[in-house]
Amino acid sequence: MTGTAAPPRHPRLITLEGGEGAGKSTALASLRELLVQRGHEVVLTREPGGTVAAERIRALLLGTRDTLGGEAGIEPLAAEAELLLMFAARVQHVQHVIRPALRRGAFVVSDRFTDSSYAYQGDGRGLDPQWIADLERRAVGLRPGLTLLLDLDVREGRARTSGRDLWPDRIESEQDDFFERVRLGFRRRAQAEPQRFRLVDAAQSPAAVGEAVAAAVAAHLATLTDADLA
Amino acid sequence: MTGTAAPPRHPRLITLEGGEGAGKSTALASLRELLVQRGHEVVLTREPGGTVAAERIRALLLGTRDTLGGEAGIEPLAAEAELLLMFAARVQHVQHVIRPALRRGAFVVSDRFTDSSYAYQGDGRGLDPQWIADLERRAVGLRPGLTLLLDLDVREGRARTSGRDLWPDRIESEQDDFFERVRLGFRRRAQAEPQRFRLVDAAQSPAAVGEAVAAAVAAHLATLTDADLA
Repeated sequence: MTGTAAPPRHPRLITLEGGEGAGKSTALASLRELLVQRGHEVVLTREPGGTVAAERIRALLLGTRDTLGGEAGIEPLAAEAELLLMFAARVQHVQHVIRPALRRGAFVVSDRFTDSSYAYQGDGRGLDPQWIADLERRAVGLRPGLTLLLDLDVREGRARTSGRDLWPDRIESEQDDFFERVRLGFRRRAQAEPQRFRLVDAAQSPAAVGEAVAAAVAAHLATLTDADLA
Repeated sequence: MTGTAAPPRHPRLITLEGGEGAGKSTALASLRELLVQRGHEVVLTREPGGTVAAERIRALLLGTRDTLGGEAGIEPLAAEAELLLMFAARVQHVQHVIRPALRRGAFVVSDRFTDSSYAYQGDGRGLDPQWIADLERRAVGLRPGLTLLLDLDVREGRARTSGRDLWPDRIESEQDDFFERVRLGFRRRAQAEPQRFRLVDAAQSPAAVGEAVAAAVAAHLATLTDADLA
């Protein structure tokens, strides 16, 4: 196995990362609005999912609750199986949605992408980040041009979603120490790749978060050349 | 990434490999009979599958026919996604069925195992065998003590199954050149690991195949120590 150089960044792939309750949905909507206003085609998508097969895999990944009973008769998912299913879904998403959209000149805005695998399955579940890097290189082959990390205290995120998450999914059902590791993992990645990540303080009001997201995207767009937009 | 040494062999894990029409089902039945007669507990299982989650993954892998219409609206599976789904199912199978059975002293007889990934996704689909070796090391961690390869001419196998395979699955729907590569891949693996593989000529009569399988298993059992059987 050779060393794993990071895959190239694509300027028109923008991803949002962060825990639950950080306001990703609101940010996604304002991000799309901003790009559409500037005349760009925008494909809004999410992970795990984004294709028919990938949404099937998503149901397997999230629908099998260990802690709340969940689906009858299904065994707990091993961490390694969780990682491999995430990347199987991602391969389908990249080949059937993301690359075709980028090829025709569209922007792709994805709610979660490979950084989530490093944070959840790597930092959260303790799987080897070298393995994840190898999967990224072999099965994904590209990184976003811009990643917005909506950073929020774990308890604050829990408090915000406690009303709406009456039936948390399998991963949402994890304990706080899991989410603390995930949060730290995201922050470490943001520090290690400052040219790609913009860290947004999600403790601010939704309006302030929206403004921070818009400013980060506008700054990113200002760096793009005509070739990047073709 | 470090070099990938093959995982250790477990003497009580026996696998059957080979293409369609080679008589695996008959061989499995006689294999079980022989072990049960000698007083062993036998767990008979198959891949992809063997657990509730793994059988769900199997449905995704085999049920989505590209060539015959198949399920409406589902996109073709990328080769990389196929490989990752196979190994996700295998992780569940190993952790929830195979290892528990081996721990309590049973024999496990599996219709297909990791060798099929090398042959179908490696030789058949052209994916890097180093990648498969890395997945085997990280996500499986053991090899069979004995692998019976039922070897048969591709056209002969097709002729034998043409009656029963009115609705071939996604992989069965591949062309002959794919199955020729798979067959050669299996034979190469058998040559490279002669202490593990027994090649059985599946062109013989079912009775002769059954005898060859029984002889190979008896020879394998004769090599086992009391410690191997505990």
